[in-house]
Amino acid sequence: MTDAARKTVTACVVVIGNEILSGRTKDANIAYLATELGAIGVRVMECRVIPDIEATIAATVNEVRAKFDYVFTTGGIGPTHDDITADCIAKAFGVGISEHPEAVARLTRHYGDPALFTAARRRMARIPHGAALVDNPMSVAPGFRMENVYTFAGIPRIVEGMFQSMKHELSGGDPVLSRTVRTNLPEGVIAEPLGALQQRRAALDIGSYPGFRNGKISVSLVLRGTDAGELDSAASELVGILQAMGGEAEALAG
Amino acid sequence: MTDAARKTVTACVVVIGNEILSGRTKDANIAYLATELGAIGVRVMECRVIPDIEATIAATVNEVRAKFDYVFTTGGIGPTHDDITADCIAKAFGVGISEHPEAVARLTRHYGDPALFTAARRRMARIPHGAALVDNPMSVAPGFRMENVYTFAGIPRIVEGMFQSMKHELSGGDPVLSRTVRTNLPEGVIAEPLGALQQRRAALDIGSYPGFRNGKISVSLVLRGTDAGELDSAASELVGILQAMGGEAEALAG
Repeated sequence: MTDAARKTVTACVVVIGNEILSGRTKDANIAYLATELGAIGVRVMECRVIPDIEATIAATVNEVRAKFDYVFTTGGIGPTHDDITADCIAKAFGVGISEHPEAVARLTRHYGDPALFTAARRRMARIPHGAALVDNPMSVAPGFRMENVYTFAGIPRIVEGMFQSMKHELSGGDPVLSRTVRTNLPEGVIAEPLGALQQRRAALDIGSYPGFRNGKISVSLVLRGTDAGELDSAASELVGILQAMGGEAEALAG
Repeated sequence: MTDAARKTVTACVVVIGNEILSGRTKDANIAYLATELGAIGVRVMECRVIPDIEATIAATVNEVRAKFDYVFTTGGIGPTHDDITADCIAKAFGVGISEHPEAVARLTRHYGDPALFTAARRRMARIPHGAALVDNPMSVAPGFRMENVYTFAGIPRIVEGMFQSMKHELSGGDPVLSRTVRTNLPEGVIAEPLGALQQRRAALDIGSYPGFRNGKISVSLVLRGTDAGELDSAASELVGILQAMGGEAEALAG
């Protein structure tokens, strides 16, 4: 397939949870999923963080599943009263929800003693009708897929296990590659030649991220695109420009 | 003012930046703003992470500024070609954009030598017409407010400085207070009495967040609400329930 024929495959991550919106918990799932998805050619184009409110969850899922190729939700599929995501997904798709025999079987095996397989834990076997299970190698209780919407747990280690167990199902486009050029020249000095480079290299996306390293200004210039040769050529052109301006510049892979 | 008369004041945080969507950078501004806003009675009800695309930024800002009392955007107001947020805000509000005299004056003073106040840096003085400046005690280049939309930089330390310099302008509702009860009982065991407590304490929002401490299961039960007395009473009721079940339980402030 030629580059031109390959399409861009997009995704949206929906983080469900009052604990993120209150600031109590820092989300870690967006960065993980974005990185992993990018590596297989699926571009995260938007993320939303929304509260544990049924109408909001259902409306958000319905909006974004129509806009993006894939949707990943995290959070809200545990055993407690605030775990309402599975019901909201069923509502969004207009389907029923009940215990999934395979999910019940897995949890029954996992808990062993029937007394431990409490009514609350049985809630984790409730899956929207028509959904396919997503394996949970970490703690058994499955996630699930409804059409293009994958529903994962919220705990980062469980999200990682679920994603790794299902990622072979995804059809990505061209993986997005990147090169980073780091310089000690401040943004205000390099902005003009950098903007000109972006115009000459329209197929690439060039971002400028200022920061500090060892107490000194350090700007990371990140070139992103799908053509490794173009990226290498643009990165060395950029290093040359920065050095000609009297700056330090080093190109890093990725 | 009585409790019943006070209204809930809401906010949305819009994080603008390809670097977050690529997974390269972990956002830190959502947790900071959510915590600070919660403390002054402004509840973050939604966050969005969106790319550096003009149409997306303008449409998102227009959608959320109609839905929430306050909107805070972070990212994209620096001197480089990928800093397009100010133009997008002007577009969203249907106003022009040009150099703001006070912003020019501040940056002129800051850079001193006119040769350092480059054309790129002058871009940071471009402010949508009708906007009020937000001070930047960290690096001078200001943020701004258009109606209920505050536009901040992306670097966390600058966001913190901008927020602290303008937060007195915000009118919050009742601050959301919280109590945390930590227990060694697993969620599947406590789910039922916890759900019953939530039903009896409908004015509170009770969340259950499982995790690990020193290699053992540890569940944080977070009670949130606006009435300190009700929170204290519910937290001690919950501690009693957990201890009666044979678990360890300790109530923590906040």
